[in-house]
Amino acid sequence: MARSLAEIVARFGGELRGDGARVVAGLATLETARADQLAFLANPKYRGQLAATRAGAVILAAEMARHCPAAAIVTPQPYLYFARVSQWLAETPPPPPGIHPSAVVESAVPASASIGPQCWIGPDVELGENVVIGAQCRLGPGVAIGAESCLYPGVTVYHGCRIGRRAIVHGGAVIGADGFGFAREADGAWVKIAQTGRVLVGDDVEIGANTTIDRGALEDTVIEDGVKLDNQIQIGHNVRIGRNTAMAGCVGIAGSAKVGAGCTVGGGAIILGHLELADNVHVSSGTLVAKSIATPGSYTGTVPFMAHDDWLKNFSRLRHLDAMADKIRALEKRLAQLEPLLEKKS
Amino acid sequence: MARSLAEIVARFGGELRGDGARVVAGLATLETARADQLAFLANPKYRGQLAATRAGAVILAAEMARHCPAAAIVTPQPYLYFARVSQWLAETPPPPPGIHPSAVVESAVPASASIGPQCWIGPDVELGENVVIGAQCRLGPGVAIGAESCLYPGVTVYHGCRIGRRAIVHGGAVIGADGFGFAREADGAWVKIAQTGRVLVGDDVEIGANTTIDRGALEDTVIEDGVKLDNQIQIGHNVRIGRNTAMAGCVGIAGSAKVGAGCTVGGGAIILGHLELADNVHVSSGTLVAKSIATPGSYTGTVPFMAHDDWLKNFSRLRHLDAMADKIRALEKRLAQLEPLLEKKS
Amino acid sequence: MARSLAEIVARFGGELRGDGARVVAGLATLETARADQLAFLANPKYRGQLAATRAGAVILAAEMARHCPAAAIVTPQPYLYFARVSQWLAETPPPPPGIHPSAVVESAVPASASIGPQCWIGPDVELGENVVIGAQCRLGPGVAIGAESCLYPGVTVYHGCRIGRRAIVHGGAVIGADGFGFAREADGAWVKIAQTGRVLVGDDVEIGANTTIDRGALEDTVIEDGVKLDNQIQIGHNVRIGRNTAMAGCVGIAGSAKVGAGCTVGGGAIILGHLELADNVHVSSGTLVAKSIATPGSYTGTVPFMAHDDWLKNFSRLRHLDAMADKIRALEKRLAQLEPLLEKKS
Repeated sequence: MARSLAEIVARFGGELRGDGARVVAGLATLETARADQLAFLANPKYRGQLAATRAGAVILAAEMARHCPAAAIVTPQPYLYFARVSQWLAETPPPPPGIHPSAVVESAVPASASIGPQCWIGPDVELGENVVIGAQCRLGPGVAIGAESCLYPGVTVYHGCRIGRRAIVHGGAVIGADGFGFAREADGAWVKIAQTGRVLVGDDVEIGANTTIDRGALEDTVIEDGVKLDNQIQIGHNVRIGRNTAMAGCVGIAGSAKVGAGCTVGGGAIILGHLELADNVHVSSGTLVAKSIATPGSYTGTVPFMAHDDWLKNFSRLRHLDAMADKIRALEKRLAQLEPLLEKKS
Repeated sequence: MARSLAEIVARFGGELRGDGARVVAGLATLETARADQLAFLANPKYRGQLAATRAGAVILAAEMARHCPAAAIVTPQPYLYFARVSQWLAETPPPPPGIHPSAVVESAVPASASIGPQCWIGPDVELGENVVIGAQCRLGPGVAIGAESCLYPGVTVYHGCRIGRRAIVHGGAVIGADGFGFAREADGAWVKIAQTGRVLVGDDVEIGANTTIDRGALEDTVIEDGVKLDNQIQIGHNVRIGRNTAMAGCVGIAGSAKVGAGCTVGGGAIILGHLELADNVHVSSGTLVAKSIATPGSYTGTVPFMAHDDWLKNFSRLRHLDAMADKIRALEKRLAQLEPLLEKKS
Repeated sequence: MARSLAEIVARFGGELRGDGARVVAGLATLETARADQLAFLANPKYRGQLAATRAGAVILAAEMARHCPAAAIVTPQPYLYFARVSQWLAETPPPPPGIHPSAVVESAVPASASIGPQCWIGPDVELGENVVIGAQCRLGPGVAIGAESCLYPGVTVYHGCRIGRRAIVHGGAVIGADGFGFAREADGAWVKIAQTGRVLVGDDVEIGANTTIDRGALEDTVIEDGVKLDNQIQIGHNVRIGRNTAMAGCVGIAGSAKVGAGCTVGGGAIILGHLELADNVHVSSGTLVAKSIATPGSYTGTVPFMAHDDWLKNFSRLRHLDAMADKIRALEKRLAQLEPLLEKKS
């Protein structure tokens, strides 16, 4: 969608320097932007690219404005401004409301909802106004999806689960499959524990492609408002994720873990079950969290990679760390016995 | 489903203390149970909650019974008892048998089977009695699914794969995609090796949401009876998983690995290819198993996480572990040369 | 498909020793092959199995030929030869061209294409000749799929993404979902950055089951020709994967990483965002790559697993590595002070 700089500033604020009639049709980086695109300078690292940019205009902070060769939108938070404008310029007309004739719909849905080809909407499903359900989604009995939410093609929501307003759920996500709970017989066979809780997802949540969120065993699994989950994340039963927490791809959260609000979890990190993480905890990528964290801050537990041969030499020592510590202690003791002898003599 | 305590004890055994006419409609924890619910005390950690419970009745061991303020079902294995009752109380009427008119079914299926909306059942598929196939499942040519099995919506089973009786397969699982096998040309291009084996899944297996099990290259990939796989697990080609082994979410098993019976594998663990794990091996979450394990027991290989700044200080040392070991050895030598000198003198 | 040895050699080259009229109907290992099967000896480790094989013929290198009890096809690269033959013998008749009546097709497709049951092909989709789209695939508006490509059932391709020729995409793969990009408000809420790039996949690429490849934020995510991706891999936005690079299952590549050509990445490895890996870099399974790699070679960063009790003893030391290094330094200093004293005296 093409917009003039004046329209953008009228909507999102900021101070315009240059020709408000200039029209931009999309966003780009400083390096790649053309004259009909809007660039942004948020990370000081890219400041060197400013002089040479061909962008039609640049979103930037006041202290950068005098170096800008093009029109500028000056704002204290260029990245946030860029995010807001990006949504507006990327807006496409929503799919037309109505039910595709190939869909199987067993519930009443609002006239404003758009139900894509070959969807299955089970009985007793509640959809809010303007909901968009992409092709081949499957919503089990009793599911509820809040107004303005969008499910991309191929999403599965099991019976009884609830998703709030303005949610975005990507293809292949499975919400509400059984948690992993079994008791064990004396002969080793596993007896399934019925998973009778639900998944409750708040407002403004985004759920990535092929992410799975299990239903609770007895209670519910809860994803609070504003949580953002990347692709291929696994959330176990009875987990609670606090407001505005964001998790990168491939994270695994085991059953009954409670993650606070405002946390970030890096890609591939694992949080074990029955733990509690305080608000504003930041877990680095690849870290295994094996105990609760009561204090906000950044936590890491990964190993540096190295050339394979160096690794062979260094990491074989890990099997003998305890012995190394013992040797150091023994050396300290021996030296402590020698020193007075020698001092006496000197 | 609501049941009286007398009915429960008649079906599952145990000793009833209290009014057998009391009716319970579901299970709950000691802390949250209401008067129409059945709670359980399996983990001694929760014993303090017993006195204050409002549960209509509690499943517990004999030694706890005298502390119970409500009716009790006394059994030596409260957790197992709870699991069994949970299934019974959670039972819902199965979907009606028959083929949904929107399904595309190219094989004969038993009258007792339930084929959900928009399923594709390819040619030469064999379904057992009372099989339930959820919405939008895809069963390729020659697939077989044993009696009483349930596939939730959105499961894919490739041609020729076989699943046993009483299986539960969750949404998004893909069974029988090609294993990852290639030979390499001199110029670096990869030449695909046809994957002509199948996946054979035994009886009483549960497969989690978005879990993938690859077909064998030349032989079959085999999942034995009673195996339980959580979500987002990846099983490579030619793998064999022994009876009653259970794996938590996000585990990866590389090609041709053989995992014994009665094993447990924690979340996010990885088992490399062509290895063998004995029966009753327990692999901790996040552990990379890079060689075979011949002895039953628990195995771990993870690093402790710490505050990020502490980690920076400590983990940089990992690059120098070999040098540290050398230094210790040098110190030992120097000290061993000093000590006799000094002893002689003293 | 059954073929005579003479036909095989006529097509793929190699030197035939034995009866060219012998017919083989498939491939198998030396150990399991029957008289109507073709075996191969590529790994010297299996050389001991040659004498006892019952295979109808064996593909092997010249130096092994005299030990072969059956007919032989002699070639300098037995594994590559095996790969090529395996594809030929496994060939099955392609599904008949045409559009299944249950599919919803909103674009013109070539008469040679096969569109399976219940597919959704959105508007403005371009399909090449002989494309096979399995049951229940979903191709959004403007998608392009090159000639001879095969999508297995249940693949999702978002709007505008392009896949080259001869691609194989397995069930549950999601190509083109939004990348994970947000700016943060002062109150902690995340503001979505529109993901306006595409995914561009080259020729001869294979994409495994439930693998996800995100669309770019501003630019495109690019998968070059000949790349092979196993199952459950996550590729973030703006990533570029070089020609003929292969990645095993469960790998995660964070946003804007550039991986060179001819690389291999082991299962479960994670490559952080905004890094560059040179061509011909080999990352071991389970390794976290946290900085760029400029030099070809093998890189590893994993910890050895051990019996759980040994691990408890050894790995608790990791928290004190820095202190251990300090102690060693202190010992060296004390010893350096003692030694001259003693030497003086002796």
